[in-house]
Amino acid sequence: MNFLTPGPSQLYFTVEHHLKHALKEDVCAISHRSKAFQQIIAHTISQIRLLMNVPQDYYIVFTASATEIWERIIQNLVAENSFHLVNGSFSQKFHETAVLLKKQAYKQEVALGQGFEMADLQIPASTELLCLTQNETSTGVSMPLSDIYELRKLHPDKLITVDMVSSAPYPDLDFTQIDSAFFSVQKCFGLPAGLGVWILNEKCLEKSMAIEKSGKSTGTYHKISTLVKNIKNNETPETPNMLGIYLLGKVCEDMNKRGIKTIRNETNYKSVLMYHTIQQSENFKVFVENEKFRSKTVIVADVVKEKASFFINKFKEHNITVGSGYGAGKETQIRIANFPTHSKETFELLADLMK
Amino acid sequence: MNFLTPGPSQLYFTVEHHLKHALKEDVCAISHRSKAFQQIIAHTISQIRLLMNVPQDYYIVFTASATEIWERIIQNLVAENSFHLVNGSFSQKFHETAVLLKKQAYKQEVALGQGFEMADLQIPASTELLCLTQNETSTGVSMPLSDIYELRKLHPDKLITVDMVSSAPYPDLDFTQIDSAFFSVQKCFGLPAGLGVWILNEKCLEKSMAIEKSGKSTGTYHKISTLVKNIKNNETPETPNMLGIYLLGKVCEDMNKRGIKTIRNETNYKSVLMYHTIQQSENFKVFVENEKFRSKTVIVADVVKEKASFFINKFKEHNITVGSGYGAGKETQIRIANFPTHSKETFELLADLMK
Repeated sequence: MNFLTPGPSQLYFTVEHHLKHALKEDVCAISHRSKAFQQIIAHTISQIRLLMNVPQDYYIVFTASATEIWERIIQNLVAENSFHLVNGSFSQKFHETAVLLKKQAYKQEVALGQGFEMADLQIPASTELLCLTQNETSTGVSMPLSDIYELRKLHPDKLITVDMVSSAPYPDLDFTQIDSAFFSVQKCFGLPAGLGVWILNEKCLEKSMAIEKSGKSTGTYHKISTLVKNIKNNETPETPNMLGIYLLGKVCEDMNKRGIKTIRNETNYKSVLMYHTIQQSENFKVFVENEKFRSKTVIVADVVKEKASFFINKFKEHNITVGSGYGAGKETQIRIANFPTHSKETFELLADLMK
Repeated sequence: MNFLTPGPSQLYFTVEHHLKHALKEDVCAISHRSKAFQQIIAHTISQIRLLMNVPQDYYIVFTASATEIWERIIQNLVAENSFHLVNGSFSQKFHETAVLLKKQAYKQEVALGQGFEMADLQIPASTELLCLTQNETSTGVSMPLSDIYELRKLHPDKLITVDMVSSAPYPDLDFTQIDSAFFSVQKCFGLPAGLGVWILNEKCLEKSMAIEKSGKSTGTYHKISTLVKNIKNNETPETPNMLGIYLLGKVCEDMNKRGIKTIRNETNYKSVLMYHTIQQSENFKVFVENEKFRSKTVIVADVVKEKASFFINKFKEHNITVGSGYGAGKETQIRIANFPTHSKETFELLADLMK
């Protein structure tokens, strides 16, 4: 079966090979405080840095999931006020995280399938952190990078964090324009779930330490100061998902060998093919109307005549599993993941089936 | 190499086999909300329940690590006052977790290598939660189960939580005498790190919801009410370490087939052999003087004449890696893990080498 689901998804095609090596190299049995494992962490970080062009002065730290990172971000970067751009289930959950942590969590919301115009945003002056969901996995709405940069210009005093869960490493993000970004590994990286990656700068560390100093709790083992102190030594506060960190480094290395430009070009090709196919089809309709907000990595289509499950089952007969819609779209939409592990051939086959 | 380190440790001998099956069965690619994965969660929970004799009305939920569970326990079970029995690095870290979360965290401390006499404990009446470390991984000090039951009798009004990180499933714990227990999988279960298991009863859920109701934050995606709501449906709030949950179920099933009694008998045999060997040896001395506090699963020895590293390197020549001491004992102690995956033959070989 070929999983074109938007996470978990098909494993990257080299993962099985690396798993075998991990067993041979006792990656799961060695101490997480050993030199050997410190080297694995250092390798993984350097490969992520290379692949995503992360500046040297940005920290890259590990958590258990992107869901955890939502919590850590709010605990560590918001004393009082956060601001959330909400246009789907995951940006909504990020907002709820701040509410549960008793913050003043402001949100600006648009309908499902819509994006935001930066000029329309009403951001209170007291906002400490802007929470952006660069790629809303539930609706296939993507935020153009130029909009993020515009927001930075409009609000140079506020921290900006970018949820790239289902797009990284596709967007060629200029990290100097933001303060924090994060993703999980079971989407575009094609890895077993259970690992989140959080990229953050010195300003985030400073903010977190200022909150700590004021007497508020910023968490325990995964507060920024502890994460940073450990990662400077290529360690983690707790015994982490060591296998996950090892596999991520290996897959990033494979992607670097293939070349991020090639991966982006292939992603573009497959997305053009798929949106074109949907537009030509009588059975489907592109959900995101405004082209500039259409995600390249999570493609959402309304199913016009039949139930979504009809087509999902149909494609399964040809060994392709696409995702169902999320939440409100569960019965009426399909979601097609366009990740680096998904081949052009698979996309061409799916396009043929959709015609 | 044979890792007799107290976590991470040698993988359970069936893990490689199960990993191959996980790939074949697309465990990492299917949706974490699918029926197939719900069945995997249900299987894992039922096998843990059977192995450890966990009552049906106790919830079994998953986190990323035992370190995370320290945090979740304090957030969810303590409004103001916790009480900690501290006799090593890990019980100390549990206490620090409560301090970082701004609780009144009382502790009673004894020297490294010592255990506690229940009658000597000065527990304030205001204590909401008693935090016990049943097996202190840093020093090899174990708490007799009868002492836990005595504590329950003395304090029927307080919640009791038991850190079993490096002993479960060895102790034949009567769960009805405690409210919460937890472990991670990279110790006795011989699994890749990155998964914590938390067992808790209805009283814990009620306590957590009372704290929530009072207006305090108990966390976000991993607060007890959310964990319980999800696990009732065999789901998790976030995309979890799906591979870890699958492997845990398979290894528990293997252990159930072997029989928990057999595993306990073998553990006893190996620990008797090892303590006897240490006592007979001129080079080593048993660290924990009082026999009743000696851990069966983490055996700590002082190295008498040489540096600890001398023997650690010596044993490595025979393909056995034992643990170094922890913290203060790093240079002068060795720690030998006695987990279900460690064979009698390996222990007999190590005993021969130690003579």
